[in-house]
Amino acid sequence: MMHSRTLRVDYDKPTQVVCVVGYELKVKLHRSAPPGSKFFSVKCTANVQYSISPPSQETSHLSPIPLNGNSVLHISMSRASQYENDNKLSIRYYGKNKDVLGRAVLHLTALEISLDVDADRDGFVEKNNPNKGSWKWGPNGHGAIVLVNCDSERSYGKKPDTEQDYISRVSDLKDMSVMVLRTRGPAKLPEGYKLTMHISQGDAESVRVFRARSSEVGNNVLYMLHNQFGKDYPLVLSSDSLSQEVPYLGGVGEMNFYVEGLRFPDKDFDGLISINLSLLEPIFTGLPETPIFTDKVMFRVAPWIMTPNTLKPLEVFVCRTSDNHQFLKGMRNLVARSGYQLKICREYMNRGDRWMQDELEFGYIDAPHHRFPVVLDSPRDRGLKDFPYKELLGPDFGYVTRVAKDVSGLDSFGNLEVSPPVTVNGKNYPLGRIIIGVAFPTATKGRNMTKVVQDFLWAQKVQEPIALFSDWLVVGHVDEFMSFVPAPDRKGFRLLLASPDAAYKLFRDLQNDGHGQAKMFEGRRDEEPVTLDEILSDRSLQAENNYVQSCIDWNRDVLKRELGLDDEDIIDLPILFKFEDEYRAVAYYPDMVNMIVLGKNLGIPKPFGPKVNGRCALEAEMCSLMEGLGLTCTFIDDFASYHKLLGEVHCGSNVRREPFDFKWWNLEM
Amino acid sequence: MMHSRTLRVDYDKPTQVVCVVGYELKVKLHRSAPPGSKFFSVKCTANVQYSISPPSQETSHLSPIPLNGNSVLHISMSRASQYENDNKLSIRYYGKNKDVLGRAVLHLTALEISLDVDADRDGFVEKNNPNKGSWKWGPNGHGAIVLVNCDSERSYGKKPDTEQDYISRVSDLKDMSVMVLRTRGPAKLPEGYKLTMHISQGDAESVRVFRARSSEVGNNVLYMLHNQFGKDYPLVLSSDSLSQEVPYLGGVGEMNFYVEGLRFPDKDFDGLISINLSLLEPIFTGLPETPIFTDKVMFRVAPWIMTPNTLKPLEVFVCRTSDNHQFLKGMRNLVARSGYQLKICREYMNRGDRWMQDELEFGYIDAPHHRFPVVLDSPRDRGLKDFPYKELLGPDFGYVTRVAKDVSGLDSFGNLEVSPPVTVNGKNYPLGRIIIGVAFPTATKGRNMTKVVQDFLWAQKVQEPIALFSDWLVVGHVDEFMSFVPAPDRKGFRLLLASPDAAYKLFRDLQNDGHGQAKMFEGRRDEEPVTLDEILSDRSLQAENNYVQSCIDWNRDVLKRELGLDDEDIIDLPILFKFEDEYRAVAYYPDMVNMIVLGKNLGIPKPFGPKVNGRCALEAEMCSLMEGLGLTCTFIDDFASYHKLLGEVHCGSNVRREPFDFKWWNLEM
Repeated sequence: MMHSRTLRVDYDKPTQVVCVVGYELKVKLHRSAPPGSKFFSVKCTANVQYSISPPSQETSHLSPIPLNGNSVLHISMSRASQYENDNKLSIRYYGKNKDVLGRAVLHLTALEISLDVDADRDGFVEKNNPNKGSWKWGPNGHGAIVLVNCDSERSYGKKPDTEQDYISRVSDLKDMSVMVLRTRGPAKLPEGYKLTMHISQGDAESVRVFRARSSEVGNNVLYMLHNQFGKDYPLVLSSDSLSQEVPYLGGVGEMNFYVEGLRFPDKDFDGLISINLSLLEPIFTGLPETPIFTDKVMFRVAPWIMTPNTLKPLEVFVCRTSDNHQFLKGMRNLVARSGYQLKICREYMNRGDRWMQDELEFGYIDAPHHRFPVVLDSPRDRGLKDFPYKELLGPDFGYVTRVAKDVSGLDSFGNLEVSPPVTVNGKNYPLGRIIIGVAFPTATKGRNMTKVVQDFLWAQKVQEPIALFSDWLVVGHVDEFMSFVPAPDRKGFRLLLASPDAAYKLFRDLQNDGHGQAKMFEGRRDEEPVTLDEILSDRSLQAENNYVQSCIDWNRDVLKRELGLDDEDIIDLPILFKFEDEYRAVAYYPDMVNMIVLGKNLGIPKPFGPKVNGRCALEAEMCSLMEGLGLTCTFIDDFASYHKLLGEVHCGSNVRREPFDFKWWNLEM
Repeated sequence: MMHSRTLRVDYDKPTQVVCVVGYELKVKLHRSAPPGSKFFSVKCTANVQYSISPPSQETSHLSPIPLNGNSVLHISMSRASQYENDNKLSIRYYGKNKDVLGRAVLHLTALEISLDVDADRDGFVEKNNPNKGSWKWGPNGHGAIVLVNCDSERSYGKKPDTEQDYISRVSDLKDMSVMVLRTRGPAKLPEGYKLTMHISQGDAESVRVFRARSSEVGNNVLYMLHNQFGKDYPLVLSSDSLSQEVPYLGGVGEMNFYVEGLRFPDKDFDGLISINLSLLEPIFTGLPETPIFTDKVMFRVAPWIMTPNTLKPLEVFVCRTSDNHQFLKGMRNLVARSGYQLKICREYMNRGDRWMQDELEFGYIDAPHHRFPVVLDSPRDRGLKDFPYKELLGPDFGYVTRVAKDVSGLDSFGNLEVSPPVTVNGKNYPLGRIIIGVAFPTATKGRNMTKVVQDFLWAQKVQEPIALFSDWLVVGHVDEFMSFVPAPDRKGFRLLLASPDAAYKLFRDLQNDGHGQAKMFEGRRDEEPVTLDEILSDRSLQAENNYVQSCIDWNRDVLKRELGLDDEDIIDLPILFKFEDEYRAVAYYPDMVNMIVLGKNLGIPKPFGPKVNGRCALEAEMCSLMEGLGLTCTFIDDFASYHKLLGEVHCGSNVRREPFDFKWWNLEM
């Protein structure tokens, strides 16, 4: 449907009119006809098209047409003017004897205007996409995408680029979405006309818009001072400036704008924002001009996306502490053998906090034009609290956090994981689903992940979260009882679950085969050895583990339902727990499920299990379970420096991984 | 898909198990079999069904079945138990020579549990609606509805019922949605089992749940003190109590719960809330019980709905002031003749504020079980500010407001209207669309309706708002240039627009016919008379009105597009404006479009136009335009007490109307 605009025409003086190509002007002829008018006729120059409704019965279009109360003249122009007022349309009004009573003359200037974005998501700004004003998910969807500019172009004195309202380096432009204002028309706009870009108050909380003052500076990274550089890319729209005039370039013009996302989707922000460009007409001196044409584009702020264990690792992060030499040695070997990079966070930065998994979660944001990793900083804030901001934030490495009061152990990101891609009852989750641990929803007290982080995770939408029960653990993290490993068959992965029943089954079979006197922890000076017979006769340990198994089974049922898993997709690992600290559980021996997954290489806490024929029976069982999947187990001694402090390999490490090939905007929602 | 729950079974001691009818228990047989087990067999009582996967190859179900690593026993029960442990299932494990190695015995108790709501929206709570856990719009939709309990059961010392967390009168129950917990089973739950109702932290901000302690008290309105009455309807869920045990009645039991909405949909609340009921199993003494079954119901909070001029009036509200006797007389006659009730707000309450339209907007909320009017109180807060709360709030009369700083004239509700039902490009708006007035979105300064009220209006969703440009007026209200009247044809209504062009046209035609010396305001002592010749020769007035016409035309184009109107749906009324106060406009003579619509009777500001053949030409034109629609015009003299103060009949009155027949939940969204 062609947009149309009502145009007032006076018969006593010529009117200058600006017409936007593709839009129609409607003149209610009766309204301003001279008194006594009964007929009218219309003449115009070549670039002007007109029609009359209701259609005239006259055969010759030159003879006067009867004027009715509802006669409407529809005017449009098919191409831009080269000069101001280069077209003309005149209306003659006649009395009942076809005597001329008056003449209205319109001097017409045609403009082509379009505000353009990459609505088809191919990385390039196309011209006047018909769907640019709305947003639709899916491979047949449309609508542009903007990134939260949460990295920092500066490496010293750095802060996320969202926190400054000027562009200090050209390199910052690539984090923004290009928007092009294309105009075509005379060298300048008719007197008093303006182009204005504008945004709603609500949307301005989520984006800023800059523009290029002159022709672009190219790809040189310029180090300029704010005052110099800011001049080349002036701020157009922000919370302080909801509407601003933008230049009209004249002739065939293209002006680049740069849209910068300021905040991620959240409970009170669905991620959609609109930017408008209007042509303003001066109607009355001293009064605000009237928008006579508005073009609108819609963006969605790219969500923060997590990366599951099945994606290719890029970097492995661990902490160096005064006591973790043994662990570091194991990790260094594993990572080197796997061919990845090990990054060590030193003591001055970690201040003795070794739980690299807990302080942060690696993720990324993705748009057709650009993509970069973004660290989600946990509100946990122990020794490592400065690491994400001070060491990770930087050029093309973004940072986001949520501030919370009253954080608990469940706010550590060992309690925040993500599944590989799954399909559940026909619904696809090609980016997997986020997994967090909380108290039972029925518990009248208990620890939970803080609401601001939960709200953030749910609002990202593309990895719909699942809440598990992890409050049964002293530490309370889902990574204490579950992990995912890649698999060559079925759904491409297996869910690994800690299973006291599997441990008891293994130990009973060993006892049955005459190994009841084999000892756990043999040879360790920091732990009392204990025989299988002793373990199996400890009725209180058995009761505690029955409880633990029921907690894990509860989670198993949820995971099967929410991830669409069969029993064959799940592998039970022989792991025992014990109670500590008000009936909450910790691992009895190093918790093998708390592993690091680097492609086909698994770095597993060395369990120090009972030796059978010279080999640790737990390691043997673990290897036999994993080897069928083509996975290699490396057992890392984390006993003294992690296990005894209630964490393991996974808790003490973090992996930055490659993003998904799948593009989030292709999700069907 | 049947929900299933993993069940741990020990072979060395009998297990007591509660099974919910309709849900399946899955036993992983291999997991807890005695060492050396190679076969198993299963026996059970009549009310227990079981199956084995993978299916056994054995022909006789009595002979032992080979035990695999992945053998799973599926157990279900088809009806509730009468006594605890009245059913039994036993599993025998055999060695390779079919020697018995162990036996696991399950003592089974079956329960039927369902939390029920009126998910099919017929006003009655049905049993276990399969769709009760989700919400879908439309005539084929489903999902229960809850009202914000924003009326006040008490008439003295009143406040909205949402502000007290107890039920003080039985009559309050009808404002709430009934939820029924239906259970069937033994006289009491097995030792340690519990039923618990629970809600998320976020949802608890929006609802409360009470329950009936005993059998219901019936419909008697009891006047009881809080401490006495609250006991009969204890509070179950609220922000302070996210989870609470609820009684199990035993045998065939039904317990009523009452759900009370606390807040309307808004920017940060989509209106949906879920309530959960779980059966808890005691797993380990001293530890939180495990939810082994959860039923969920979903409610949507009913939106606040406005009523257009085309709905039947119920009550007409005006203010009495020291100087409005003439106006009141006119209104009294009109309202009496139309057969409605006139309610007069006296001076002690209005404190000289006569703008009844501006302080409040009448609307209603609707659910299948109940419906009542709700006044939206404007943040304008002038003399009338106490009227909505003190005079309107009461039993079955709700109250809602939004608190704003920095209110402007555009926050008065003469600037908040609603269209009759429309269809726009195939999209139905059977409840019409809300219309507000703001500054041009392109204006760098200007007045707007405050964001909190706009957010509220948009969040109601069912009458998607349209923003017009009203900042060109000194007062700034959309009711200064538009109104809707019922019509027997076309879309069932006409949009009336003030039109300076129509006024000029009328006046020029009159001048042309020799009435140039006819006078406006003739005979009024409070206004200087002016001839048509004088008006028509005032070039500055013409310029101002050209500007006004262009402002109204801008709104006309928006309304045509957003309401799907044709020119034939719009009637231009001959009204002139003039500038005052920094180039903003006021009506030159009483603004006839600012009328009160009472069915087919229109109460129109008496324009005091030029007399032609003894009759006011403006009244004659108005009558001729309206009479074709079967509407009767009554002209009310509001000149001295309203027009001169920049308002008219509509500004000075308010109409409470009947709700729509159309139910909002039947909207297709």
